Amino acid sequence: MRILTFLLLWLPLAVAADPLASWNDGEAKQAIIEFVATVTEPDSPDFVPKAERVAVFDNDGTLWVEQPFYTQLAFVLERLRELTDDHPDWRKEQPFKAALEGDKAALGEAGMEGLMQLLMATHAGLSSSEFADIAADWIATARHSRFERPYTELVYQPMLELLAYLREHGFKTYIVSGGGIAFMRPWTERVYGIPPEQVVGSQIALDYKLVDGEPTLVRKPEIAFIDDKAGKPVGIQRHIGRRPILAFGNSDGDYQMLEWTSAGPGRRLGLILHHDDAEREYAYDRDSHAGRLDKALDDAETQGWTVVSMERDWANVFPAAPQD
Amino acid sequence: MRILTFLLLWLPLAVAADPLASWNDGEAKQAIIEFVATVTEPDSPDFVPKAERVAVFDNDGTLWVEQPFYTQLAFVLERLRELTDDHPDWRKEQPFKAALEGDKAALGEAGMEGLMQLLMATHAGLSSSEFADIAADWIATARHSRFERPYTELVYQPMLELLAYLREHGFKTYIVSGGGIAFMRPWTERVYGIPPEQVVGSQIALDYKLVDGEPTLVRKPEIAFIDDKAGKPVGIQRHIGRRPILAFGNSDGDYQMLEWTSAGPGRRLGLILHHDDAEREYAYDRDSHAGRLDKALDDAETQGWTVVSMERDWANVFPAAPQD
Ligand SMILES: [Ca+2]
Ligand SMILES: [Ca+2]
Repeated sequence: MRILTFLLLWLPLAVAADPLASWNDGEAKQAIIEFVATVTEPDSPDFVPKAERVAVFDNDGTLWVEQPFYTQLAFVLERLRELTDDHPDWRKEQPFKAALEGDKAALGEAGMEGLMQLLMATHAGLSSSEFADIAADWIATARHSRFERPYTELVYQPMLELLAYLREHGFKTYIVSGGGIAFMRPWTERVYGIPPEQVVGSQIALDYKLVDGEPTLVRKPEIAFIDDKAGKPVGIQRHIGRRPILAFGNSDGDYQMLEWTSAGPGRRLGLILHHDDAEREYAYDRDSHAGRLDKALDDAETQGWTVVSMERDWANVFPAAPQD
Repeated sequence: MRILTFLLLWLPLAVAADPLASWNDGEAKQAIIEFVATVTEPDSPDFVPKAERVAVFDNDGTLWVEQPFYTQLAFVLERLRELTDDHPDWRKEQPFKAALEGDKAALGEAGMEGLMQLLMATHAGLSSSEFADIAADWIATARHSRFERPYTELVYQPMLELLAYLREHGFKTYIVSGGGIAFMRPWTERVYGIPPEQVVGSQIALDYKLVDGEPTLVRKPEIAFIDDKAGKPVGIQRHIGRRPILAFGNSDGDYQMLEWTSAGPGRRLGLILHHDDAEREYAYDRDSHAGRLDKALDDAETQGWTVVSMERDWANVFPAAPQD
């Protein structure tokens, strides 16, 4: 009897040892486990050597919350308001006007390119290290309006588990985001375990020059690359030079990345996070200004992509709040 | 007496166990060993965590031979000659005219940008995987005119040892070359142990589209990025997002990469290979069309860069030819 009690006491620990504990049993979890088992089994005809186990993840709406608007937009808005007096034209020109007026429809229309334009205009002339410091400081203090937690705690617990699970199985995990690469890099290693060299994103042009005799990379008022839609496979090829075998996204902006990944030879896994959980997070798809999911949802079945329902497939959404 | 003979017989093996066996004892070898020991010693004030041990290497003239002209130029020339009948304008326009006439001075003038223009024009419209196959096929069969060996055997043995030595000490080794990224990636892992995702280079613009229903990355007749001179620190920031602590180059094209690396905080190591060995390889510096080394040589001492003399510092230049 004593022994049984002892064993029962240990059961919760045994359950916690599931590396994907925040994933409910179901098709999505099974698809992930089966895929990883197959490509890492040396005797399988679908075995993939470690070096080629490349997994790519969209960021906004896939790894962290993107409603009521992109986190990066909140970052940019603060500085936009500070600088507006010096730029009267911004009150008339898009996407500046939309950002200042909080016009979500117009901002959605401007998309990732619009966001990069705002980022470019608000932070041009800064050095890359000054920008990294500003982004790191902002992310350390800013809070999400609804959840009242730092944005870096509004990352999805099931995705943190998936990233770790893949790395334990020899995968290299990459972010491939439409967001600005320099905005993400200061915190992705700490939050996701993804180092700066594995972050692919949109880019502002940089100028190398001596500033007061100091070698400096200066942000130019010019967009160098938009890593969104058809830009995602291009960004993957530029940075990684290998075709991924797993891609995870949440919107039509990830369509081409999913398509490029899935069409490669051998086993591939394409996954789409469907935000259908208004209670724990948000519910949105075809009509959303940020993270619109329409064509990719229609084509998921014919393309063989697994649709992950936040409500059905996730036992937890966010990590537990840190204890004081 | 017998025991002494036995010990003497073993001496060559003990020497062979030196990870930098092809480096002669001297200032350069000592600088490398001392630097690596310092930044990897946990109790040192100059200790650098593994994740930040980034080492960048130029390719042409630093890791492999670049005389009598860039290897990539030999590759491009074959196709240029095949296509010339369809492009009568090439006989008049630079850098095509210079390439067709073997005009080294004009080609030198055109630099890496000229080389990328040739690459762009000769291989536009190909898919990224078609181009990778063509480059891999060419490199497998082409031979260097003087040494009559494949180019991939005309890599420098001391540099292969240095790359391996750094990796054994937790460094991540990167190529940062003015050459085309897609030309290098098909063979850098096999030859240098550097995987495609750690190759930074000049880039042709890519277009993602469906070709006969197949997702394809198509090479456009457009240069996306020149990874040379002031472009090298920019390429490093884009791809790696960390400042290197060691940089190795051989020409003024590496000046800014060395400068950016050396000016960072903490211990840094900048190295320049000086080709001063006409007998075993080539002797060239200030007046060379390819790999001109002038200002970086003048400034090496004040910048604290170590100049490696091929003649004095290298016991071997190329790897031994494979035995049949
Ligand atoms: Ca997204
Ligand atoms: Ca060089």
